[in-house]
Amino acid sequence: MFDKLFSPKSVAIIGASQKALSIGNVITKNLLRYEYKGAIYPINPKADEILGVKAYPSILDVPGDIDLAHMVIPAQFAPGAMDECGKKGVKFVIINSAGFKEVGKEGLAIENEVIAIAKKYGIRIFGPNCQGIINTDPEIRAYCDFTFTFPEPGHISIVAQSGGVGALFMQAIHDLGVGMRFYASNGNACDISISEILRYYGNDEKTRAIILYAEGFSDPAEFMDAAREVAAKKPVLGMRAGRTDEGAKAATSHTGGLAGGGLSTELIFRKTGILTFRDVEEMCQSAVALSSQPIPKGNRVGLITDTGGPAIIATDELVDAGLKIPALSDTAKATLKEKLLPQASLRNPIDVVATAGAPHYRAALDVLMGEENIDSVYINFVTPSFVDCEAVAKEMAEVSKQQKKPIVCNYMTDKPQWTGTTAQMKAGGIPCYDYPEMAAKALAALTRYNDLRNRKIGAVRTFKDVDKTKAQSLLKQANNDNRKILSAAEVYGILAAYGIPAAPWKIADSVNGAVKAAEEIGFPVVIKADSANIIHKSDVGGVAINLADKAAVESTVKEMTERIAGILPAKTRAGYPRHDLKFFIQKFMPGGKEVIVGAKAEHGLGHMIMFGLGGVNVELFKDVSFEITPVSDAEAKQMLSSIKAYPLISGFRGAKGVDQKKLVEVIERVSQLVTELPAIQEMDLNPIIAYEDTICVVDARISI
Amino acid sequence: MFDKLFSPKSVAIIGASQKALSIGNVITKNLLRYEYKGAIYPINPKADEILGVKAYPSILDVPGDIDLAHMVIPAQFAPGAMDECGKKGVKFVIINSAGFKEVGKEGLAIENEVIAIAKKYGIRIFGPNCQGIINTDPEIRAYCDFTFTFPEPGHISIVAQSGGVGALFMQAIHDLGVGMRFYASNGNACDISISEILRYYGNDEKTRAIILYAEGFSDPAEFMDAAREVAAKKPVLGMRAGRTDEGAKAATSHTGGLAGGGLSTELIFRKTGILTFRDVEEMCQSAVALSSQPIPKGNRVGLITDTGGPAIIATDELVDAGLKIPALSDTAKATLKEKLLPQASLRNPIDVVATAGAPHYRAALDVLMGEENIDSVYINFVTPSFVDCEAVAKEMAEVSKQQKKPIVCNYMTDKPQWTGTTAQMKAGGIPCYDYPEMAAKALAALTRYNDLRNRKIGAVRTFKDVDKTKAQSLLKQANNDNRKILSAAEVYGILAAYGIPAAPWKIADSVNGAVKAAEEIGFPVVIKADSANIIHKSDVGGVAINLADKAAVESTVKEMTERIAGILPAKTRAGYPRHDLKFFIQKFMPGGKEVIVGAKAEHGLGHMIMFGLGGVNVELFKDVSFEITPVSDAEAKQMLSSIKAYPLISGFRGAKGVDQKKLVEVIERVSQLVTELPAIQEMDLNPIIAYEDTICVVDARISI
Repeated sequence: MFDKLFSPKSVAIIGASQKALSIGNVITKNLLRYEYKGAIYPINPKADEILGVKAYPSILDVPGDIDLAHMVIPAQFAPGAMDECGKKGVKFVIINSAGFKEVGKEGLAIENEVIAIAKKYGIRIFGPNCQGIINTDPEIRAYCDFTFTFPEPGHISIVAQSGGVGALFMQAIHDLGVGMRFYASNGNACDISISEILRYYGNDEKTRAIILYAEGFSDPAEFMDAAREVAAKKPVLGMRAGRTDEGAKAATSHTGGLAGGGLSTELIFRKTGILTFRDVEEMCQSAVALSSQPIPKGNRVGLITDTGGPAIIATDELVDAGLKIPALSDTAKATLKEKLLPQASLRNPIDVVATAGAPHYRAALDVLMGEENIDSVYINFVTPSFVDCEAVAKEMAEVSKQQKKPIVCNYMTDKPQWTGTTAQMKAGGIPCYDYPEMAAKALAALTRYNDLRNRKIGAVRTFKDVDKTKAQSLLKQANNDNRKILSAAEVYGILAAYGIPAAPWKIADSVNGAVKAAEEIGFPVVIKADSANIIHKSDVGGVAINLADKAAVESTVKEMTERIAGILPAKTRAGYPRHDLKFFIQKFMPGGKEVIVGAKAEHGLGHMIMFGLGGVNVELFKDVSFEITPVSDAEAKQMLSSIKAYPLISGFRGAKGVDQKKLVEVIERVSQLVTELPAIQEMDLNPIIAYEDTICVVDARISI
Repeated sequence: MFDKLFSPKSVAIIGASQKALSIGNVITKNLLRYEYKGAIYPINPKADEILGVKAYPSILDVPGDIDLAHMVIPAQFAPGAMDECGKKGVKFVIINSAGFKEVGKEGLAIENEVIAIAKKYGIRIFGPNCQGIINTDPEIRAYCDFTFTFPEPGHISIVAQSGGVGALFMQAIHDLGVGMRFYASNGNACDISISEILRYYGNDEKTRAIILYAEGFSDPAEFMDAAREVAAKKPVLGMRAGRTDEGAKAATSHTGGLAGGGLSTELIFRKTGILTFRDVEEMCQSAVALSSQPIPKGNRVGLITDTGGPAIIATDELVDAGLKIPALSDTAKATLKEKLLPQASLRNPIDVVATAGAPHYRAALDVLMGEENIDSVYINFVTPSFVDCEAVAKEMAEVSKQQKKPIVCNYMTDKPQWTGTTAQMKAGGIPCYDYPEMAAKALAALTRYNDLRNRKIGAVRTFKDVDKTKAQSLLKQANNDNRKILSAAEVYGILAAYGIPAAPWKIADSVNGAVKAAEEIGFPVVIKADSANIIHKSDVGGVAINLADKAAVESTVKEMTERIAGILPAKTRAGYPRHDLKFFIQKFMPGGKEVIVGAKAEHGLGHMIMFGLGGVNVELFKDVSFEITPVSDAEAKQMLSSIKAYPLISGFRGAKGVDQKKLVEVIERVSQLVTELPAIQEMDLNPIIAYEDTICVVDARISI
């Protein structure tokens, strides 16, 4: 698919230059320096050669075939150059130059023109406004990029929209002494998308882990398909950027794609099986472990240490990340007692003590590999000057090569002095970390990946008892009136149409009507003023609760009519009757727990569904969980149990919980509702009152 | 004070050895390798020389004076060797050997014997079971330690109880290319304490930042005094280890001192002005910034970047850490527009764009240095191959040297290629980081340090209206009865004695008495069964709330008497009357917000005071804050405002808040109470019902 992009037999640089500090020069130099195995054709109308390589005035003058061409020329010359590329039969063009969509209208016009020409010839465009690609394969060594890190071959592939972040990843992995497979940073991504590159990496056997950075997706659905497919095959590590409002703003100003929505990016990652990170270093370090170690079957860690303090720090970090440090079996302890030094601690962490040598480490490792209730191994290895550390490392490497359970090592040493030991660790493929926290985080990532692979995806239920037509007609009514906010009758009508239980309610437009409605519903009741002219009912005293009898209803409706009539705007909103004041009468539901279910439309992505503690607690504790539609049964259950106050839902200190099955169903029904009625922009059921055996909505808002 | 320890003119190694993989050999080798400027005297009865240095059979045979002696001999020989040291006039002895307190009783006996001998001669002991000290001063170069990192001279000093963690810090700072001043790791710390070393570092002019690691303090009060004194002079960075239960357990098994209490360590740090970290890397990286950059006056950051993505990541991290990214002034924007490249973004972050050269960076830096509403500067500097990066770095270095506002740099480069640029950065004293997150964290640490220095310490109020004698007599009564849990009457008596408001209450022992009490208090009331034989009243149905009239009180007391009589243990607890059942009648306080104030005794440290959301919310949200006694007015206020649900206390969405002044006073009074009554082990006022204009305790427990 992208073989001629990542493994080109020949590369032309349109705009190659003799000027040292220019991109056209740097790309040519990088290809030479990285010892690219194919043919290099610098294109420059004024030069005979660039850096000793024969140059051609035009791409049409090049004698051989060209798989890939760089464009490093001003944007306005790109259409003409693309046409020549088409005539020459070039398959892929990397447009490094800026000056396209990202600079505004004029640039966008050029970009569209270039796309049209490329399409005509069947050329795929990478970029514009981008770095390029790198393939470290010793048979290829294609450095089609102007960055500066020269990676060794390896098994981690990187795809990043932002060149700066891509370069950061590549340099970080290189600094860790680890190799890379492919690199791609595609900037504006006007044609070849992150999703397509991801698929290509997914099908590449030598890619064992993928690092992905995107600031937004122009086609989230396409990305989700690709991510699901690839994440099922190998670890994909994703970074969520722009998670704060300020960060999202910074993102908006820097990318041509859709930015913002840091949260929805994270939800997409989780839903499709991408391991999410919020820290570049943690992500790169975790990639090292994920590309070299087996995946643990569970979260139980065995620790080996030759020093006390770092074991405490590691334990803190592992436990914080949700991992367990189980006790060792008696058999294990007996073996350790026999084989370790007398001062050793035979618990978990196993402290082999600083004077431990190779046989002691080996014994501890073998014990942990054999323990049934241990899934992974964490090692603190400080290299004492009075120990044969190389021999110790050799044993570790041997055990690591068995690939039985994952091993990570906090390797505390002065590398220039301990080269032999370091070489052994590397030969064994043991991920080595400079800090106990980072080693623990990498192990936690391995464990998270196992959880993610085994997560319950569940089934998306489609409820057949819904009345979509009815709901659509209610929406249409509001739309025809040009109203963004639905009336209470419309909102509850839509809920009823989708089988979402609400407290019994009626609309009345007079005192007598209100009394009659209250009597039919049954006391006590709540009365809310209902008018298209009132947005915040409670601000105008338009809400009265716990009205116990006829008299209370009468006086409330009278009082509200008088007061609110005075408050209603002199000039009503266009198309609204002046006196549309009605009364929404609803059964008062005391007791119970208040929760919220909400939905919000996301560009190109359906809706985001929210569940959490309701009422004022929404703002106070922000104890909520999110999912993207369509929400499956398993995901809805997960939404319930992942809030902090879940004990309140499930039962807590003798108090019974609430009807979780019904809450799960409401989430699923809301998911179906907004999916089938995509005009809905926002929807809040807040609060839903949840009881032991029933639930009902007592306040709701829908905007379109 | 410790000059002869850290700057010895001569060092003896008792137990120096020719065996390569032995501690006695490594210490001698390290002194030689580090080119120690003083005299080295290996002591070995069987060798003429060790590593080419003349050896002596006994320390008494050494011709010159000895400032410092290492002991690397089995513990049982330490007393004899200490006696010889005394006779020789040695001032300091580092006992590297293990086999003392940490191995149990026998070792403790030897340790005590050694301490007694040292005391007799006025020798100070460092250790035992420890690494030793390092002084990098070019005039001294004392490497009295068996670890392996050979640091350059610098301005960061390290003191760590754990040798493993100390070595980790030292290697980390060394790997960052930064120098160190002093190093000390004192293991069992039987004599010279962390506190004394801290004071010594505090008085050392060349130490600009101190890194401290302790797993617990045998004398927390001594430590607090030292920490307060030193933290007022220079940044002290502390690490909290054992913060999880599992981590604390791992700590207990590794140190001779008092461990656990990860939380109280953090509280001590905050109270005394030590900057707390939970991550080794973050702490070491922050130390680099703290030892080289000025302290910002506030939390407003100006960013300069030559790449988009890393600016987003940095913004996220800075904002998450509580920093602000203010807009630039119009003057600033005008200057930037004039001096930067046309594609540059003139907002904050300022994107100078990848092609920016030295003048562009300089212009952006000068603008930020001049902006009134900018306190510190963050730079993303990726080194493009098409830019004269060394010239850029030179400008940065010049601005950094002005020491006007702190600068940190996320320096994204391949160091082996950009040596000239790196040298410029180093010469300018610019802290350079490999990742945007770490640079942001270091800048956040600088800002946190400013906050900590300017924190309100407040005054500890002593309330004169308390009746200490009354409270003591109530405690004495329970103590005489050998009861750990106080009765309700005792608890409320103590609260009354300390002026802590409680809902009106009375004790009754009959139906009539209960009715009379309720009538005097006023309905509605709460009734609680009160018996020394009942620990959890609600478990035995011993609590009834909201009793509205005489009839309700009568039936409740009758019913409780019958039911609880059947439940009370057949055999009552020793010394308790069989039928001690009484009834605690209290005014029922509906509405209001439930909060908790608690206290817990901490070994050697007074008490820890807690404030937070009360009732079942304590367990559900764990939304609480802590302080150590004595709690000042400012600290009590801070306790209130630092919980997540503070809006509930201060007023929220139109709802009024509660009486914060009275809550603050309760915290202060509780602080005074437990300080004056140290026998109290735990105390929970939960819930305290807080209203707009009053508060009162409605349930309380005290254990002694």
